[in-house]
Amino acid sequence: MLNSGFATIAEDGDAVVILDQTKLPGEVAYVRLTHVDQAAHAIKVLQARGAPLIGATAAYGVALGLKHQADDATLDAVCKQLAATRPTAVNLQWALARLQAVLSPLPEPERSTAAWREAGLIAAEDIAANASIGKHGLSLIEHAAARSGIAQVMTHCNAGWLATVANGTALAPVYAAHAAGIRQHVWVSETRPRNQGHLTAWELGQAGIDRSFVTDNAAGLLLMRGEVDIVIVGADRIAANGDVANKVGTYLKALAARAHHVPFYVAAPVSTIDFSCPNGAAIPIEERDPEELGIHDIGLADCAVRNLAFDVTPAELVAGIITEHGVFPPQRLAQLKPR
Amino acid sequence: MLNSGFATIAEDGDAVVILDQTKLPGEVAYVRLTHVDQAAHAIKVLQARGAPLIGATAAYGVALGLKHQADDATLDAVCKQLAATRPTAVNLQWALARLQAVLSPLPEPERSTAAWREAGLIAAEDIAANASIGKHGLSLIEHAAARSGIAQVMTHCNAGWLATVANGTALAPVYAAHAAGIRQHVWVSETRPRNQGHLTAWELGQAGIDRSFVTDNAAGLLLMRGEVDIVIVGADRIAANGDVANKVGTYLKALAARAHHVPFYVAAPVSTIDFSCPNGAAIPIEERDPEELGIHDIGLADCAVRNLAFDVTPAELVAGIITEHGVFPPQRLAQLKPR
Repeated sequence: MLNSGFATIAEDGDAVVILDQTKLPGEVAYVRLTHVDQAAHAIKVLQARGAPLIGATAAYGVALGLKHQADDATLDAVCKQLAATRPTAVNLQWALARLQAVLSPLPEPERSTAAWREAGLIAAEDIAANASIGKHGLSLIEHAAARSGIAQVMTHCNAGWLATVANGTALAPVYAAHAAGIRQHVWVSETRPRNQGHLTAWELGQAGIDRSFVTDNAAGLLLMRGEVDIVIVGADRIAANGDVANKVGTYLKALAARAHHVPFYVAAPVSTIDFSCPNGAAIPIEERDPEELGIHDIGLADCAVRNLAFDVTPAELVAGIITEHGVFPPQRLAQLKPR
Repeated sequence: MLNSGFATIAEDGDAVVILDQTKLPGEVAYVRLTHVDQAAHAIKVLQARGAPLIGATAAYGVALGLKHQADDATLDAVCKQLAATRPTAVNLQWALARLQAVLSPLPEPERSTAAWREAGLIAAEDIAANASIGKHGLSLIEHAAARSGIAQVMTHCNAGWLATVANGTALAPVYAAHAAGIRQHVWVSETRPRNQGHLTAWELGQAGIDRSFVTDNAAGLLLMRGEVDIVIVGADRIAANGDVANKVGTYLKALAARAHHVPFYVAAPVSTIDFSCPNGAAIPIEERDPEELGIHDIGLADCAVRNLAFDVTPAELVAGIITEHGVFPPQRLAQLKPR
């Protein structure tokens, strides 16, 4: 069943309902967004998170922002407000640019309806793209399972259906393999400081997929011991040269995978590829609130904190990018460039 | 001032007082150990932690265990009990073997006094060895500072004075450089799951040394950005071939340091080298209580957990082992073997 029966985002009259991911896994709670401010807040505080879902939420945020007024100035302001929430995931900018391109030429009275329609399209396309990612990634899991009869998959952060409208990116091949009856076990990393590994453990559990929870630090030893056959992660932005920005800690897993000859794959829809960005060094890396590391209340009030939210994995460490159009070596992304 | 004025372990009549590291950094509290059971408990729950301090605490544990009875059976039982607390740090076995070698030949009535004396010797030697590690590592920090006028040091876990009787191992060169007026800044990693980075941030703060706290995941990006000049970590056991077991996550930092041509050093007294252990694969890796990862109370009660406490960094990634006798390439440890 799609997303084990849950929805991450859904239209509800002239509002949008999202699953509040800051409450998971302890509580399944929903938030009703009626105003663009709430959509921007939801993205900022990670109630809605994951690059593809951020894109869809931002698109709906535009629709919410144009409910009562849809002149050029409002459209600009709404897009600027949403764009300012998080800098790294390019799907956010991509969705906003798409909404602006569709809405700008329209007469003002048509814009609100068009915004809802376009946001709905983006959501529907995300569902389809991720299903296709699952299909293309399935053979990689099959191959990983060939050695011992069970595929030992490692991931990082959460790039499952919670990070998307449906189906997930990094976990889409895992779900496809599960449906195909392939035996697998997933190593779930805590993903400090926001512990998105909790989300991954939860959603894999909902689907009945075997998984073990480990610290981020454990990846090296697990790979050294041969307990991992394939690493699959999501992405927040992929540069034109194939460098990948993803949740901080991804790069360390990629280095360890390389050291032990384990293939490292990135799963993402084409909307995550930023063809205007030449390489990883040009990707803005979000630094979040130091309070997320939680040390200021425990006797370390004077201690400086750097809360780097993403890192960059060089293309040379990436075996392939699993997209809705197939698996591409990072050096051949230009083939996917929209004309 | 030694240890910024604190003691990690001290004799107190016929008892031993230790700084309770599970209470830090929020509270400076001491625990008085009067029975070997308390010493074993203190090591097990990390009230006393860090390979060299575990060794000294175990030595005092033997003294506590022989207070009322010192026959061979008691000596054996006490050593077995202490040896069973933690498997990876070899200093524990080393200290116990040393106590047994000294005490076994003695008549029973002399053993208690001899145990206290030997434990005191081990503690005093640790202080001196670590001071010497600081002296030998100082030039490495000086060299690291040469590029920009400030040494950007990265460490992992806590291998400061809190992990020793005094002076620290990985941080001994940092303290020596501080005393010598060299400008430096230390990247302190959280060190999940037990957050020993809190201890490192606290003790560096006590000494007035500039530091920034980051997640374990951030190491790759910091190294990629050129924000690290030198990595220095401690060790729980060094195999004869130079492979290093240290707190889980160390290996990932070593891989990232290598990728960016940043020297990766290990600081440890010779008592941490296990000449009977051929290589890292032969080092037992402690797996600790899954509850340390804290996921069973948040809606993930059914999720498997693997709490691997250490990992192995291959000798080829280690630029040098900083010992009390100088800095040695990992391939030349045989020179340090006691005859």
